[in-house]
Amino acid sequence: MEIIIAKDIMKANDQIAEANLSRLDQAGTYGVNLLGSPGCGKTTLLETMSGYLRGRLNFAVIEGDLATSRDGERVEALGVPTIQINTGGGCHLDATMVATALESLHLETIDLLLIENVGNLVCPAGFRLGERLRVALLSIPEGDDKVAKYPTMFSAVDAIVINKIDLLPYLDFDLDRVRSDLQIVAPQVEMMILSGRTGEGVADFANWLAVKRSEVFGVPHSQ
Amino acid sequence: MEIIIAKDIMKANDQIAEANLSRLDQAGTYGVNLLGSPGCGKTTLLETMSGYLRGRLNFAVIEGDLATSRDGERVEALGVPTIQINTGGGCHLDATMVATALESLHLETIDLLLIENVGNLVCPAGFRLGERLRVALLSIPEGDDKVAKYPTMFSAVDAIVINKIDLLPYLDFDLDRVRSDLQIVAPQVEMMILSGRTGEGVADFANWLAVKRSEVFGVPHSQ
Repeated sequence: MEIIIAKDIMKANDQIAEANLSRLDQAGTYGVNLLGSPGCGKTTLLETMSGYLRGRLNFAVIEGDLATSRDGERVEALGVPTIQINTGGGCHLDATMVATALESLHLETIDLLLIENVGNLVCPAGFRLGERLRVALLSIPEGDDKVAKYPTMFSAVDAIVINKIDLLPYLDFDLDRVRSDLQIVAPQVEMMILSGRTGEGVADFANWLAVKRSEVFGVPHSQ
Repeated sequence: MEIIIAKDIMKANDQIAEANLSRLDQAGTYGVNLLGSPGCGKTTLLETMSGYLRGRLNFAVIEGDLATSRDGERVEALGVPTIQINTGGGCHLDATMVATALESLHLETIDLLLIENVGNLVCPAGFRLGERLRVALLSIPEGDDKVAKYPTMFSAVDAIVINKIDLLPYLDFDLDRVRSDLQIVAPQVEMMILSGRTGEGVADFANWLAVKRSEVFGVPHSQ
């Protein structure tokens, strides 16, 4: 009888994540784990951001979903190399899934690998994938109370992106409440504000990612 | 060494859920499991609905959250008997947590027990709590693609409530796409449309819950 224990699963995941990171480092590929609730706007941000990244960095996308390849098709339609991972009901991506996806990418030509995790503000926080940077999206319609209510996620990331700022006029959302909760839960986390739909603030976010990458790897493959 | 296996956990959970259901049935209390993403509007719906239920049914609320008692405080402020469960980072409520909460409620006087699950469109689908009815909320800003992308959740519920219909003019959301996905994923699931914020459609939803309860238990305790 095979017995699988949760603690061992986490340890095994961390080891595979380390191997993914080494693989990405060797190739000069900077991995970003994009996290957030269902419908917080991860795919739309990737779509909009692709316009700002094109010509500056070579980038690829891994799309994580329970089911369907709808998100992958949206990104691939923009000419971005895309791998769709279906977890078959699983609530998060893990390092093994990403390792398999890496096999299908020409990493040596890719500067930036954007990994869109399964839409879930809880479980993906616990699973490293081999990324250099973790960014959590929080969209205006989700409410300004989420940082305190989901501290596991917001304390596990490097940055928080407040998305759908175009909807602010129609909703009661207090940005200062998010800032003050963040001061308590995770004061080290950077906060950016944008709208993936209108494009407001997206260039700044894309620039920020490009700078983060250059701090580790210097000039991109394409230059 | 204690070894805990996932399959056994699920089986144990189902047994405790059965015991919860028996306990609720004896008391004439109709349990409803409210599910949905973070920020889909579960607590706001409970707040608005309380106005329509008051005087018709005695109701109580169990609030599930990873952390904070913010939601519980909002509902309790309306004079509703409320138990807050903090999962301490756990991604879903389970039957044992609910069993503990039931100890603190005077079930023999309660007609309707509304259980707000942790905000998560994946994991809570797998854990029965002892409820008679499962309702998943999907809010307009989350997007019209979610039924197909989260089939585990939407095929596990009795009804789907499309919430935040007041935001429809500001977003691209195709109700027919939800209906056609639902026809494929879970054709038996009822669909209702409302806004917890403006109150549109909430009376109909409250009436529907009252009828569902009366089909099982007849007249409420209060009459």
